Amino acid sequence: MEVVQVLHMNGGMGETSYANNSLLPRKVISMTKPIMEAAITALFSTVAATLPTSLAIADLGCSTGPNALFAVSEIINIVIDLCKAMKHELPEFQVFLNDLPGNDFNTLFSSFLPRFQGKLSEQLKSKYGVSATLPCFVNGVPGSFYGRLFARESLHLIHSSYSLMWLSQVPQGLEGNKGNIYMARSSPPKVLRAYYEQFQRDFSTFLECRGQELLVGGRMVLTLLGRRSDDPSSKECCYIWELLAIALSQMVSEGLVEEQQLDSFNIPQYTPSPKEVQGMVQKQGSFSIDCLEASEVNWSILATNSDSDIVLKDGGHNLAQCMRAVAEPLLIYHFGKEIIDEVFKRYEALLADRMSKEKNAFVNVVISLKKIT
Amino acid sequence: MEVVQVLHMNGGMGETSYANNSLLPRKVISMTKPIMEAAITALFSTVAATLPTSLAIADLGCSTGPNALFAVSEIINIVIDLCKAMKHELPEFQVFLNDLPGNDFNTLFSSFLPRFQGKLSEQLKSKYGVSATLPCFVNGVPGSFYGRLFARESLHLIHSSYSLMWLSQVPQGLEGNKGNIYMARSSPPKVLRAYYEQFQRDFSTFLECRGQELLVGGRMVLTLLGRRSDDPSSKECCYIWELLAIALSQMVSEGLVEEQQLDSFNIPQYTPSPKEVQGMVQKQGSFSIDCLEASEVNWSILATNSDSDIVLKDGGHNLAQCMRAVAEPLLIYHFGKEIIDEVFKRYEALLADRMSKEKNAFVNVVISLKKIT
Repeated sequence: MEVVQVLHMNGGMGETSYANNSLLPRKVISMTKPIMEAAITALFSTVAATLPTSLAIADLGCSTGPNALFAVSEIINIVIDLCKAMKHELPEFQVFLNDLPGNDFNTLFSSFLPRFQGKLSEQLKSKYGVSATLPCFVNGVPGSFYGRLFARESLHLIHSSYSLMWLSQVPQGLEGNKGNIYMARSSPPKVLRAYYEQFQRDFSTFLECRGQELLVGGRMVLTLLGRRSDDPSSKECCYIWELLAIALSQMVSEGLVEEQQLDSFNIPQYTPSPKEVQGMVQKQGSFSIDCLEASEVNWSILATNSDSDIVLKDGGHNLAQCMRAVAEPLLIYHFGKEIIDEVFKRYEALLADRMSKEKNAFVNVVISLKKIT
Repeated sequence: MEVVQVLHMNGGMGETSYANNSLLPRKVISMTKPIMEAAITALFSTVAATLPTSLAIADLGCSTGPNALFAVSEIINIVIDLCKAMKHELPEFQVFLNDLPGNDFNTLFSSFLPRFQGKLSEQLKSKYGVSATLPCFVNGVPGSFYGRLFARESLHLIHSSYSLMWLSQVPQGLEGNKGNIYMARSSPPKVLRAYYEQFQRDFSTFLECRGQELLVGGRMVLTLLGRRSDDPSSKECCYIWELLAIALSQMVSEGLVEEQQLDSFNIPQYTPSPKEVQGMVQKQGSFSIDCLEASEVNWSILATNSDSDIVLKDGGHNLAQCMRAVAEPLLIYHFGKEIIDEVFKRYEALLADRMSKEKNAFVNVVISLKKIT
């Protein structure tokens, strides 16, 4: 199964939120649905005897946009179908939408929430034939998920998509990473190590916090950008940033960007292998692994319209737009606004050229966890 | 004890939020502190044997501004002091800040929340002598409190200040209320009845919803604008609006506002007597009453600076500003933006004149409730 990823940032650069999953085709978000279905079915079998009157669900890194409530909507539909099949009464839903405090919660609450609630009522009517409002209580939760966000043992289900590869900060000790903006084949070993150590600190903090917040038997389904290879500088995870570094380097050579500025810019991301994720989950100890998958996705999937399969002719443009939604705030923060259009013009050309000559893919890592202790 | 009230609207005119309690002197917000202390102490004595690991607190109609988290901050301080006195371990806090979806949650989350969290840490340090972050998880809850907002039996403590006198809508059947904008001595009986019936519907819905959301033994402390008199058109609750009606009538007579426009404008508020509140609580049946008080407050209290006792010379101006924060959105919605400055210029003059000649007071009704069934 091919899965593509638009980076959905949380925790990367302080107080900003990177709302970009609105560019992601919904079929991509739906791709983890079978894993989510299995997780919810298992959750129900665990807690069936004491099925709670309310089910508490958190989405970490929800962002703002038409897709912000899409995953939650799918989860609730799965629960409705399960309850119908098992002849269970429907629970109440508590939904917690988390993102950084800088996320646009106002738009989420005033524009997207009413639509979400309207659709829920429609679905309830189509499935149960009743006109009723589904008791679904939505909360906005501002804060970094690299810290506690919820009360102890208060959640049944946690979901997060395309957020967890973002680190809490740019790792320390990247001085030797000249000419690069991410891990690259030419990065010194100490740079690769600094990235990995930051990921280890962040991901173990994340597991520790969520372990405290989930009820025993609760489930957590995470999708993040990763790699298959053991090599953290492998092309599958680094090439997309390498092309951006090339665009910036061109501008350095033309005197449009200072070399020193490029040398001190690094993307606060880490794209782990399934093996690394597995190792850290086992080391932390709060969770058992129900499912761990890596799937590969051609860049060209982003060359489709958001909700159709129509492939756009100019895939380079679309992919550049998606990457721009992610990287622009970081670039503005570091280089200023002035260079942005030029950088992305060059980046788009490089992407289009590569896409016409070779097949490149992202790798998604999906992990489904059960809280055990 | 004198208490003053700035109207803090929630649920009045649909999707707007009326952020205005930032104008309220903090000593006013603190005036219900003894009642809140008694409620929390009683809550602790009820649940002491099974003191929860986390305490869930909701503030309904939180608004946005420097005062938005002030009540919650006071509540948490009371709990910290109680725990210290009782040698109880501190619980985790879940805080739910509710207002209409149009409230500015972005500013609340990105500006006021960090300050609140900083102050909590300071207080913890001064009281326990430890540098630690108090586990306090803050959620934004968009929605009208005239409907369910929280999961069944999920809250320990509910607080609401200067919000509940706002109705969910302008009552139907106010056609005969010509020349008035609220209940007035010249209002026909059917207008007074229409106002009262809307309040009954709204307040009983409110009690019903909160009754479902509070745990048995949980507490609810509500402060709302009201009156002592049995007469709903008594001066103590209606005069403040009557003066605004006079300002508008002047403008009608000068051709600046259409008469028909004034006749169709009515404030969606009801200021109940303690007896009315008591009757409805008893009829609804989910709560017992621990405390019910009415207190009177001179308008001139609003003629003080927000955080000091310095009495401003121009009390009319300050009171008009407070009323403007409340009424402006309603007036703009109905009359358009153009007339606003002129209306409040006239209103301020009328208020200043009255304040120089007679003593007028608001009446606060404070009720402390315990969930019994």
